[in-house]
Amino acid sequence: MHFLTTSMPTLVNGVLSDAFEVYDRGLHYGDGVFRTLIVKQGIPIWWQDHYRKLEADCHALGIMPPDEPTLASDIRCLSETPEKNVIKIIVTRGTGDRGFAAQECMAACRIVSLFPMPDLSPEYAAAGVKVRICELRLGHQPRLAGIKHLNRLENVLARMEWSDHAIAEGLLLDGDGNVIEGVTSNLFMVLGDHIVTPGLSRCGVAGVARERLIRAARTHDVDVEIREIQTDEMQQADALYLTNSVTGIRRIRQIESWSWVPGPDRYPLGTWLDEA
Amino acid sequence: MHFLTTSMPTLVNGVLSDAFEVYDRGLHYGDGVFRTLIVKQGIPIWWQDHYRKLEADCHALGIMPPDEPTLASDIRCLSETPEKNVIKIIVTRGTGDRGFAAQECMAACRIVSLFPMPDLSPEYAAAGVKVRICELRLGHQPRLAGIKHLNRLENVLARMEWSDHAIAEGLLLDGDGNVIEGVTSNLFMVLGDHIVTPGLSRCGVAGVARERLIRAARTHDVDVEIREIQTDEMQQADALYLTNSVTGIRRIRQIESWSWVPGPDRYPLGTWLDEA
Repeated sequence: MHFLTTSMPTLVNGVLSDAFEVYDRGLHYGDGVFRTLIVKQGIPIWWQDHYRKLEADCHALGIMPPDEPTLASDIRCLSETPEKNVIKIIVTRGTGDRGFAAQECMAACRIVSLFPMPDLSPEYAAAGVKVRICELRLGHQPRLAGIKHLNRLENVLARMEWSDHAIAEGLLLDGDGNVIEGVTSNLFMVLGDHIVTPGLSRCGVAGVARERLIRAARTHDVDVEIREIQTDEMQQADALYLTNSVTGIRRIRQIESWSWVPGPDRYPLGTWLDEA
Repeated sequence: MHFLTTSMPTLVNGVLSDAFEVYDRGLHYGDGVFRTLIVKQGIPIWWQDHYRKLEADCHALGIMPPDEPTLASDIRCLSETPEKNVIKIIVTRGTGDRGFAAQECMAACRIVSLFPMPDLSPEYAAAGVKVRICELRLGHQPRLAGIKHLNRLENVLARMEWSDHAIAEGLLLDGDGNVIEGVTSNLFMVLGDHIVTPGLSRCGVAGVARERLIRAARTHDVDVEIREIQTDEMQQADALYLTNSVTGIRRIRQIESWSWVPGPDRYPLGTWLDEA
């Protein structure tokens, strides 16, 4: 069977294909994890961090992660062209019998796809982005918090709340009103001489860009507080930023009716992200 | 591409196949819903209830449900043999671009698979089943509560807690310690002359067997309370039952260290389930 919805290639367990096994637990239960990252001339950017996080997420769900050389080879195969592209990696627990019970030693399934880079206009980085606060509230599930797993209906429902292209991102709060993250990004706040980012022990996805930025800030002796943030507190921030492995760092210029006049950045977060 | 892990057939959008579009949002986000039910000689059991629930679950996620004759025809195609089998229906939002945003008017994808009936020993119904209480606590997400959607990692993780075949089911509590459901079933408690089942407005799956049992009890003028149940309260119950569309009604004989000597049933719940 062949599907023709995309001209971009995918490797399923190393074989060029646009089909996967209909009994795979990734489809039936969202039983797997994923990554999205930039690749350039066959080189995946921030690869060590991405692989380490993929491995940790697999372990958290009891899935055997594919080994690093195998994945790196899949990525190289798909992306030898000089331009930048996006790689999405999905690892599922694989195929099983009907029912939730996972057999031991199931063979995980890996799916590596190439996608074009999103259109990031230069205006975007310079002027900052406009953001809304989503109505959907994230549920608390400490067992899944931080993991970039395939159960993403909360993100889907939140993203369905707006269609205005001028809005670059939606912020997600939890049921207690804490700010957690963006639908596809993590949040950082500069407050005086320190940096704050929400804790993700009960919900949210701990992205690789977030991890890199925390590490870099600390290397530069800047304190990063990881704690609860209430919406009102954002209004007091000197600057707010969104991080994502594909779109990089984006300064926020507006959240609902609050706006910021972009001045000089106190800290060169974009540079730090790349060097981390 | 052909996959040979099962000898049971599947129809993907009405076409016999064991392959599935790798860009489908069912895989990427668990963006879809499902049903499992019994079929006999091409006739799906409790079909009106199942179709109505599938339709409601699709609407709750903004997915266009397949129409009833189309699904009924898929089921007939797969199951003309005289023996009982299990049908699993998955409906996903279909294939989209990378990213959470769902295009309007996306064509949903339907997957209808045939599976053998599970092995239900006669001992099982007569003697009652042994049940454990899972450590995993369900998170609250009112926007998804009740829906039989494809984000089922909580169930997967809960089911990974035990491998003892003598344990037929695990009970799931929420973070507040309320009893919500079984990993694959709903829970009913007989207390004197009334029946109690947990409310599912914050988490859990509202199964068709549960809905039928509530309706039947009320038809027989028996009060069904839908409310919070604490674990301790189960110990006071005259009898506890699990419901599921495939395994039917199962009386519980043991939950952890609490046990019940199965006496005569106060209410013929199994009969009610079939007649509802």
